[in-house]
Amino acid sequence: MENLSVGQYYLIYNAFSFGFAALAAATLFFWLGRSQVAVQYKTAMTITGLVTFIAAYHYFRIFESWSGAYGFVDGAISASGTPFNDAYRYVDWLLTVPLLLVELILVMGLSRAETVSRATRLGILAALMIALGYPGEVSTTDGGRWVWGLLSMIPFLWIIYELFVGLSKSIAAQPADVRGLIATARTVTVLSWAFYPVVYFAGAVGLEGTTSLVVIQVGYTIADLIAKVGVGVLIYLIAVRKSEVVQAGMTKVVPAE
Amino acid sequence: MENLSVGQYYLIYNAFSFGFAALAAATLFFWLGRSQVAVQYKTAMTITGLVTFIAAYHYFRIFESWSGAYGFVDGAISASGTPFNDAYRYVDWLLTVPLLLVELILVMGLSRAETVSRATRLGILAALMIALGYPGEVSTTDGGRWVWGLLSMIPFLWIIYELFVGLSKSIAAQPADVRGLIATARTVTVLSWAFYPVVYFAGAVGLEGTTSLVVIQVGYTIADLIAKVGVGVLIYLIAVRKSEVVQAGMTKVVPAE
Repeated sequence: MENLSVGQYYLIYNAFSFGFAALAAATLFFWLGRSQVAVQYKTAMTITGLVTFIAAYHYFRIFESWSGAYGFVDGAISASGTPFNDAYRYVDWLLTVPLLLVELILVMGLSRAETVSRATRLGILAALMIALGYPGEVSTTDGGRWVWGLLSMIPFLWIIYELFVGLSKSIAAQPADVRGLIATARTVTVLSWAFYPVVYFAGAVGLEGTTSLVVIQVGYTIADLIAKVGVGVLIYLIAVRKSEVVQAGMTKVVPAE
Repeated sequence: MENLSVGQYYLIYNAFSFGFAALAAATLFFWLGRSQVAVQYKTAMTITGLVTFIAAYHYFRIFESWSGAYGFVDGAISASGTPFNDAYRYVDWLLTVPLLLVELILVMGLSRAETVSRATRLGILAALMIALGYPGEVSTTDGGRWVWGLLSMIPFLWIIYELFVGLSKSIAAQPADVRGLIATARTVTVLSWAFYPVVYFAGAVGLEGTTSLVVIQVGYTIADLIAKVGVGVLIYLIAVRKSEVVQAGMTKVVPAE
């Protein structure tokens, strides 16, 4: 691979530092916000903060790994010999992606049976999606990337089906005040996730070298921030609004006509 | 560039350490103070602490980057070959400057619709102001610094207009007890921000070399502390006074005549 320019090196370096700062700040925001929501939405806020906490930890490690993989020699960037460990992302996603779906289910305040069955099914599908994607990411051939990537799309499409068809009745039964916010959280989740396969397959269609590295690393960072911080803020707003309804004594949720 | 003197090196070094200590301490002060304010001002205190938390993280990184960029050779300061990463400041501002405006809006306790519309507009303008300033900061020509700097002034002036004209009615409607404090918080915000373009354009009017480096780094540090810790303390005082009104049972805000 041709050498990274100083500008490219620092763009990725600063993107990772930005990712860590935003995720760590979001974690504290969500956990401090726990005290402002009704008791039945506290777990949703805990999990929302857990997702950004786990991601902040991994961005810290990714930043350290990136710093350690390169050094300055006569003003130019030079590989140190210790490779950049990209697997941190998959370890992160294996934990955070199932939890992201769980936080979305929890904030809906469904019945206990429905919560357990939907959260379990979506959590397993999400873990499967990540686990199937990893062999393709580390595959040395374009064919390997295609095969595992397409296998990973099966649970991904199933998750989309669950969110848009399976949940549609439950979303329609949410208080009018938050129905739009929940639909937005679901749409932002799916749209931000759709960005990952684009970056993933960019490696299989000939995008190579240092430009590819910049696109992949900065692209994943932006997608992670939208999927975890952006969706998290929506979950927080939903929890606050539903808590206002609870605190006003209107504990019964009236389905829309 | 001529060599930094040992005195200049340590002045900047100690300014960064001072910045970290003050910002980290302020963060804990604001978050501990959350428990003393009424529920409707808790988010304002959360965000106030978030601003200093994010800035404290970046001062820690800036300090480490500064330490790593120089070393002692025969009792004199010598560049290590790894450059000082000044971009941390822009990454910091991109997150904290929009949040600073959000904390000011939140503590005013406006209606939900007005809070959302004002916070969104001010947040976007602030992010735009920072994003437009960065290409000028890293520009190698004075012309580049002027062009991007002046473009960045457009959202800056718009923000001032929003704060002084757009908010004047809402400030007049605040309880008499805090009206002066809110106006002060707004003025300190704008005055401390006005310091940044002065430092910024110092690089475009011929101020060069190590003196310029000292002026820019110490100047930005002082401006950051006034804008984040100073304004944060004012926000805290406003939240405490408004909470006393709420706790005394006077929950209705009576507009001034």
